Amino acid sequence: MKKMKGNYNRVGEKKIRVSEDLLWGIHPVFEGLEQEPKRFTEIIIQKEKRSTKIEDIVEMSRLHGVKLSFVDAIRLTGEGASRIRHQGVIARTCEKALLPFAELMTRMKVSIGNGERTCLVICDSLQDPHNIGAIARSALASGAAGLIVTRERSAPIGGTAAKASAGAMSHIDICQVTNLVNALKELKKIGFWVFGTVKDDDAQSLYTTDLTVPACLVVGSEGKGLRPLVKKECDVLISIPMEGKIDSLNSSVAAAVTLFEAMRQSLFASQ
Amino acid sequence: MKKMKGNYNRVGEKKIRVSEDLLWGIHPVFEGLEQEPKRFTEIIIQKEKRSTKIEDIVEMSRLHGVKLSFVDAIRLTGEGASRIRHQGVIARTCEKALLPFAELMTRMKVSIGNGERTCLVICDSLQDPHNIGAIARSALASGAAGLIVTRERSAPIGGTAAKASAGAMSHIDICQVTNLVNALKELKKIGFWVFGTVKDDDAQSLYTTDLTVPACLVVGSEGKGLRPLVKKECDVLISIPMEGKIDSLNSSVAAAVTLFEAMRQSLFASQ
Repeated sequence: MKKMKGNYNRVGEKKIRVSEDLLWGIHPVFEGLEQEPKRFTEIIIQKEKRSTKIEDIVEMSRLHGVKLSFVDAIRLTGEGASRIRHQGVIARTCEKALLPFAELMTRMKVSIGNGERTCLVICDSLQDPHNIGAIARSALASGAAGLIVTRERSAPIGGTAAKASAGAMSHIDICQVTNLVNALKELKKIGFWVFGTVKDDDAQSLYTTDLTVPACLVVGSEGKGLRPLVKKECDVLISIPMEGKIDSLNSSVAAAVTLFEAMRQSLFASQ
Repeated sequence: MKKMKGNYNRVGEKKIRVSEDLLWGIHPVFEGLEQEPKRFTEIIIQKEKRSTKIEDIVEMSRLHGVKLSFVDAIRLTGEGASRIRHQGVIARTCEKALLPFAELMTRMKVSIGNGERTCLVICDSLQDPHNIGAIARSALASGAAGLIVTRERSAPIGGTAAKASAGAMSHIDICQVTNLVNALKELKKIGFWVFGTVKDDDAQSLYTTDLTVPACLVVGSEGKGLRPLVKKECDVLISIPMEGKIDSLNSSVAAAVTLFEAMRQSLFASQ
């Protein structure tokens, strides 16, 4: 049998690891969708399950633009998986209501149009929720306008990230995108410059790069850095000059150093 | 009964929380001291226990300048405490050999004498080993010469810190001091400027402070910041200008932003 792409083991079987961002069961998902649809990022439904309530869930998901996936079977793995009765309905949720990309674009256009300093942090497939939380905290403290995270291969925007952000996650706009390359193209159209942070001595130094322009700072994952297509979409690749015997920083530290350098530059540019 | 200062519950009873930096038992402590005395930071001995081996431990501790404490009784608390047979001897150890303060002073004198950029990070009572590890990593990557941590009320320089440092802890000098105020006085005598990082809008901005001088950057604990006497000993109090709805950063992020600003300034000063 040909192995399929993604988390499929058998054709049409979706393997899902139990994590803090999951919600399951027909009623809990229905109620959650009714109350806080913006906290839902994906709903997975087993094809053969049919009921009025499930029809309602499908309808509400479409109404609010929540990603819908229909699968032949759902197999939960990980701790506690055997005790979960999901009734063929599983949802991925976020700790806070996410901002739709279109709305973020509208806000950014206004901000750039007003001549305000506009800076976005973009996390490309960050796996560690502590890092996402820490980046949200530094982003807010350095005056960044928002955070974009990728939908696939990213840590959940759940309780762990919220705790690591020390409350910052409630105060900053977070937007989740499926196709980061397309999102970057859109952001460039409205005037953003895309800066990719890399660990590469050949890249431009952070300190000689003008970050006072409308800036998207793209941070890569802990092990692999930026994905090749994302890297290609960047206008400038920048790196933090380093000394000593190690050549890498924790993702959240690299993001903080870059964010505060952007803030420093605009403090001095406005004087 | 009057309550005594410190971790004493009954007069002369020392309460010790089980943690990864503890070593117990006469033979393990003896062997450890013989092989890697520089990894030992304190040895606690129950007064009434007497044996030739204990005499040897006392002698070796004095020889290598390891802090010795004699107590009436030892009470271990925390997970696994009841299973531990300490035989009246408990040692606190570090993941790596520490540099004695006198030796650090000698190295720093040479570095300052040679006109090299000399920067030390000082952690005042940092409680979280992840932060100590992360700071060691940023310190090394930004070219700092070493790390000073306080002996009391600090997280152990153990496996958790080593893991968080991603290998950096093996490459940077770490020194533990009992009296930080005295250590700062000594450092100032050989030409260091002491910069205390605070969260205070009245403090001098990090970005308008000349950090190209021989600099000790003092970072306070997660909740309480710098201790008052340590703060008093600082030549300059500096703060990171912030925007947005939060006014604090994680200790390790604040340290990283300060360390890389010091590196940035010297990169441009040397051009």
